[in-house]
Amino acid sequence: MACKSCKEKPVIRLSNSNVDLCKKHFLEYFQKKVFKTIRQYNLINEGDHIGVAVSGGKDSLTLLYLMSLFLEKRRKIKLTAILVDEGIEGYRDLTIKDAKKWCKELNIPLKIFSYKKEIGKKLDDILKETKEKSCSICGVFRRYLLNKSARELKIDKLATGHNLDDEVQSIVMNQLKNQIKISARLGPITGVKEDKRFVRRIKPLYFLTEKEVMTYAYLKGLTSKFNECPHSNDSFRGYVMDWINHLEEKFPGSKHAILNSFLEIMPLLKKDFEVGEIKECKECGEPCSGDICQKCNIVKRILK
Amino acid sequence: MACKSCKEKPVIRLSNSNVDLCKKHFLEYFQKKVFKTIRQYNLINEGDHIGVAVSGGKDSLTLLYLMSLFLEKRRKIKLTAILVDEGIEGYRDLTIKDAKKWCKELNIPLKIFSYKKEIGKKLDDILKETKEKSCSICGVFRRYLLNKSARELKIDKLATGHNLDDEVQSIVMNQLKNQIKISARLGPITGVKEDKRFVRRIKPLYFLTEKEVMTYAYLKGLTSKFNECPHSNDSFRGYVMDWINHLEEKFPGSKHAILNSFLEIMPLLKKDFEVGEIKECKECGEPCSGDICQKCNIVKRILK
Repeated sequence: MACKSCKEKPVIRLSNSNVDLCKKHFLEYFQKKVFKTIRQYNLINEGDHIGVAVSGGKDSLTLLYLMSLFLEKRRKIKLTAILVDEGIEGYRDLTIKDAKKWCKELNIPLKIFSYKKEIGKKLDDILKETKEKSCSICGVFRRYLLNKSARELKIDKLATGHNLDDEVQSIVMNQLKNQIKISARLGPITGVKEDKRFVRRIKPLYFLTEKEVMTYAYLKGLTSKFNECPHSNDSFRGYVMDWINHLEEKFPGSKHAILNSFLEIMPLLKKDFEVGEIKECKECGEPCSGDICQKCNIVKRILK
Repeated sequence: MACKSCKEKPVIRLSNSNVDLCKKHFLEYFQKKVFKTIRQYNLINEGDHIGVAVSGGKDSLTLLYLMSLFLEKRRKIKLTAILVDEGIEGYRDLTIKDAKKWCKELNIPLKIFSYKKEIGKKLDDILKETKEKSCSICGVFRRYLLNKSARELKIDKLATGHNLDDEVQSIVMNQLKNQIKISARLGPITGVKEDKRFVRRIKPLYFLTEKEVMTYAYLKGLTSKFNECPHSNDSFRGYVMDWINHLEEKFPGSKHAILNSFLEIMPLLKKDFEVGEIKECKECGEPCSGDICQKCNIVKRILK
C-alpha cells in the first residue's frame, strides 16, 4: 500500500476509486474537490455575502476553514459564521468553544442565536415537556432560526456542512418514506434567487464522504472531539445510516452510485416538484406552506 | 387476531396496512387487486392477443390462473402461454410439468421454446463453458427468446409474473448501480404500441408482494413446489433482496413506499430517458441498441 501520487505511506483509501493517498495528497485532493464543487455548481458569485452555518463539529469547521481558504483571494465576498445554540449541556457548549476559537483564528465574524432567546427555552428544557421525537422538533427550530437569522443578516447564501453521506441518507429516507417529492429540495444548491424569504443553501462538501471529512478534520487539527448529540434518537435515520455503511463496505462505491443516480433525476424533480405555493405564517410571518408554520405549531403544542 | 372483514381466523397480515384477512377474504382481495391493476393501467384492450410468460413457478401460475379468470367473460381476447425451457435439470423439467398441467386444466394453448433448439445448447451445458455470471447470460437469452417468440406468435402484450418485490429489487439495484435511466423501462406496462419490434410487457401482479403471491398460490393449490434455480448466483441481487426484506420487517410498508416513490417519478423518467435509438443486430436482425445484440455477443464470446 502506497500513495497513488508519491508512494508515501497512505492515510486513507477512497472507497469510490480504491485509490490510496498520503496526508499531503489527500489534503490536496479534498481541497480541490470542494473548490471544484463550488465552481461547477456555481455556489458562490462575485459580491455575495456568504453565511457559514457552524456548530463547531468536524463538518462545519472543515467547511469554515475551506471557505476561508477559497475566499482568501476573493476579497469582494463577505463571510459571516452563524451558530445556533440549541442549549444542549455537555455537547453544544463544548463545540461552541471550538467554533469561537476557529472564527477568531480565521478572522471571521461569528453570530450566535440561541433557542433560549429566540424560542424562549433551551432544547434540554423543551424536551422535558414532551415525548415527541427530539430530532424532529430540533430540526424545525434550527431551520427556522437559521433562515430567519441569515435573512436578517442580509446573507445571500448559507453554506452548510452537509457531506455526501448526509445527502445519501436524505435521498434514501425520502424514498423509504414515500416522500420523494421532498428530494426536489436536495442538491448542492437549493432555493431560488428571486425568493428572498428563503435564504439559498449551498453544500460545498457535497461530494466528500463522512470518512473523508472526518479524516480531513483530524489531519488539520480542526476538532479534537467527535461526539454525538445526547438527544439524538432518530432510529429510522440510524437504521438507514447503518445500512448504507454496510452496503458501502460490501459494495464499495455504492454511496456515490446512490448520489449520482439522484443527480441524474434531480433536474426532473426540481422542474416538476420544487415550487409549491409559499404563504406567510399567521403567527410569526415567516414563510410556510400552510396557515401556521411548523415552528409555531410546535411552540403552541408543546410550550404553551 | 381475526379477519378484518368477517372475524374468521386470518391466513395473512398485509404488511402495508396491518390488516389481517381470512382465506376467503384474502383470495378476494388478491383477485380484486390484480383486476384493478389491469384496468387502472389499461394493461389489456379489446381484441388483444395476450401472451403469458409461464415458467411453472408460483408467480407465473398465479398470473396464468388470474388472467384466465379475467378473460373468462372477455371472449374477444386471445390468450397463449409461452414457456422458455432453459434446460436446467432438476428444476425447469419439474416446473414444466406444472405449467403443462395448468394450461391443460385452464384450456390455454402452451408454446414451448428451448435454449437447446433456439440457441443450440441447454443452459446446463452453456454454463460448463464459462465462468461468467449465470443470471446475466440466462437473462439475456430469456429476454431475446421471449420477445422473438411472442412477436412471431403475433402477441400484442406479454404478461409476466413480476410482483412488487421483483420491481422494488430492480428499482433499488438500478439505483445502487447508478443505472437509474434503466428504471425508465420498469413499471406495470412497458414498450410502445408503435414499435412492433419489442412486444409490450405487462405486469398484472405489480402491486402484490412476494408473500401475498406465495400465499395465494399455496391456498389455490397452484404449485406444491417453491424451489430455487440451482444456478442462481447473483450475490448483489441476493444482498438487495435480503436488505429489503429486513427493512420491511423493521419498518412495515417500506416496500410499498419504495414502489410508490418510484411511480411518482416514473412518468418523468419515461419522458426523458426511455426511448433510445433502436437498430437491428447485424448478426440476427433482432432489435438492439448497438451493432450486435447482447445475445449474439454472448453466443460469439462463449459458444463459438
